[in-house]
Amino acid sequence: MVFPQSTEDVQQIVRICARHDMPVIPFGTGTSFEGHVNAPFGGVCVDLKDMSRVLEVHAEDFDCVVEPGVRRKQLNEYLRDQGLFFPVDPGADAALGGMASTRASGTAAVRYGTMKDNVLALKVVLPSGELMTTSRRARKSSAGYDLTQLIVGAEGTLGIITELTLKLRPIPEATSAGVCRLPSVRACCDVAIAAIQSGIPVARVELLDEMQVRVCNAYSNLRMPEQPTLFLEFHGSDAGVAEQAERFGVIAEEFGAEAFEWATEAEARTRLWQTRHDAFWALRSYRAGAKVVVTDVCVPISRLAECVAETKLDIEANGIIAPIVGHAGDGNFHASVLVMMEDPGEVARAKAFIDRLAERAHAMDGTCTGEHGIGSGKKHLMIPEHGEAAVSAMRAIKLALDPQGIMNPGKIMPDARAPGG
Amino acid sequence: MVFPQSTEDVQQIVRICARHDMPVIPFGTGTSFEGHVNAPFGGVCVDLKDMSRVLEVHAEDFDCVVEPGVRRKQLNEYLRDQGLFFPVDPGADAALGGMASTRASGTAAVRYGTMKDNVLALKVVLPSGELMTTSRRARKSSAGYDLTQLIVGAEGTLGIITELTLKLRPIPEATSAGVCRLPSVRACCDVAIAAIQSGIPVARVELLDEMQVRVCNAYSNLRMPEQPTLFLEFHGSDAGVAEQAERFGVIAEEFGAEAFEWATEAEARTRLWQTRHDAFWALRSYRAGAKVVVTDVCVPISRLAECVAETKLDIEANGIIAPIVGHAGDGNFHASVLVMMEDPGEVARAKAFIDRLAERAHAMDGTCTGEHGIGSGKKHLMIPEHGEAAVSAMRAIKLALDPQGIMNPGKIMPDARAPGG
Repeated sequence: MVFPQSTEDVQQIVRICARHDMPVIPFGTGTSFEGHVNAPFGGVCVDLKDMSRVLEVHAEDFDCVVEPGVRRKQLNEYLRDQGLFFPVDPGADAALGGMASTRASGTAAVRYGTMKDNVLALKVVLPSGELMTTSRRARKSSAGYDLTQLIVGAEGTLGIITELTLKLRPIPEATSAGVCRLPSVRACCDVAIAAIQSGIPVARVELLDEMQVRVCNAYSNLRMPEQPTLFLEFHGSDAGVAEQAERFGVIAEEFGAEAFEWATEAEARTRLWQTRHDAFWALRSYRAGAKVVVTDVCVPISRLAECVAETKLDIEANGIIAPIVGHAGDGNFHASVLVMMEDPGEVARAKAFIDRLAERAHAMDGTCTGEHGIGSGKKHLMIPEHGEAAVSAMRAIKLALDPQGIMNPGKIMPDARAPGG
Repeated sequence: MVFPQSTEDVQQIVRICARHDMPVIPFGTGTSFEGHVNAPFGGVCVDLKDMSRVLEVHAEDFDCVVEPGVRRKQLNEYLRDQGLFFPVDPGADAALGGMASTRASGTAAVRYGTMKDNVLALKVVLPSGELMTTSRRARKSSAGYDLTQLIVGAEGTLGIITELTLKLRPIPEATSAGVCRLPSVRACCDVAIAAIQSGIPVARVELLDEMQVRVCNAYSNLRMPEQPTLFLEFHGSDAGVAEQAERFGVIAEEFGAEAFEWATEAEARTRLWQTRHDAFWALRSYRAGAKVVVTDVCVPISRLAECVAETKLDIEANGIIAPIVGHAGDGNFHASVLVMMEDPGEVARAKAFIDRLAERAHAMDGTCTGEHGIGSGKKHLMIPEHGEAAVSAMRAIKLALDPQGIMNPGKIMPDARAPGG
């Protein structure tokens, strides 16, 4: 384990590793779910936590330059005085280098996009130790291949990010949040679709199934009715937010929603979203001794209700405990399977359930992961998802940029290979 | 020249060309500016105009699947009844395959993004003749390398796009447009920045310098005052559009704007934007016998005013005729040099001016092309823009996917190479 202090340190580490065919595993905060930071072939773990400086803020250009160890909350605290924020919010207080590497997204992606949409440029130490700059600070460019997007989501298999230029947004003048309970998961999805279709720029629209509500109640000592629920947030001007909320209310009523609970004050809003963000911790404490195995899929939004409904039937039929939370505006949802790891039957049932969920998403033209990534956990789903031609193209790119195979080996590519092997 | 009717036709064409080390040059509508469809090593031009079917529209998912020869206007006419539109508008009625290949953007990118942000998935015939699908129809995915974004902007050098899945938007409930005249180009840029910074979601904010206004007046028989002008468009609900326009007005006044001319009726709006879209044709007829050599750069928006001002000094100092139009919200602007091609002195002056403009953009952390691409015209700017490491990575990717070098040879990469050579 090494703790570089600078890009030059990273270059030197990678050069030494390259000389010895030694695997290099970049590490941010370790909050990823698919074994991204495992070391199946051993090697050197490059922990970037000391590279945590905000290097530049260009307020007029709505961008900033940060080191990869800067965490999301740290950045937003740093920016607050300037009226700016970085909108990608995966829940965990993750490091931005890791968020870029896993193409993270989260609750606000429906409005502001994912890391794909919010990284302008990167500095990357290549497997040779050379330093590559992927782009400049202009908002857009047509100058050649998009190396920024090749590195975003590459999970550290093509190089180590040592600097990120990120897009920022103005903190909205007004924010309002609310909770909307509906008779069914389908109604929740239908409301989300109809709201987006009608052009309401929802900032967050999160689905919790009744099981997840129960888990949150138990953890946060709340008494929310245990039924499918949407957590909402609107951003805009004072008048804009009020109009959005009103229009949303009309739509939700059509689908059988009860009266909303609105929260325009910061404190009430924070409490609301804290409940959502605590979902993972709530899960961890819900079933004593169980491990929380979180998986995610993403389908076209028209298929979301059906995919969630089938998944809930699967959960019931197979005696699995797996609450569901979803980013309803994106068609993305998570099932958090609570598994007793010492029970091999239960582990096998959970594994089979997770694979069936991926197959179900594939059958609906969706993806086996909307935001968690492939890591080592979903490598076997790469060919079913992309087909041979696309995976071959990825392999060819990997081989072209990392011929020794030292960068985070055993991740993404279905055929694990030791460096130099 | 061949006119494939299907993906299978394209596969067969590419396979035959591969067998004979024959260059393959994909062709859409030929509206690109940087020699993207030239054939420096001869070869087969694959004209995709017959592949012009809209294959699927998924209204609930806000996406559609089209063949590469579908044109922008054709698609929007097709979609209108469903209340949807495709927002990328580069001015020309270009084919969507070409727009993806050059990473096109245009006037509405400030609100809706560029082709990079609006292509969900592609089918691509690789240089081997194999068919690759880059992604599925889910809104987002973290499943491996982003092959979609690798192909968007690759200018046909990695394969031929035979199918595109595109994001769509709901047609806004209300649209309003307006013209805002300001005392200087700097004031225009400052107003645009301030409006965006304050969170107004402007749909279009186009800068025309006084010279371009004169050109438009001459062509469209208008009498707009010849001073720096912003063309604006707002999208939203009725109340939202009114609020945006009002807030914009307050900002513009602070920077010395005269009274606006607002146009909420469709006819007046169309006339206004027709003038902007006719800019290229206006230029062509402004100086008899001259060729319009259009170039574009993009800089961080905080540098836009300075970059335009310096460019205008350069134009004056060197006796060049080059009106300027800009996508002020993106920091992107075009200089359209009117050149008498039979005057070698004038050609040389124009060429030197264009290179100085790129250098100026580079010095401001900008790009030598925001939306026109590299083609053969800007290859020599690739290393100054990206550095050796990034260009080497691009070369390695090109070689990995197209080892024979048959796909659109002589474009993007600074070192032109004949196929198999």
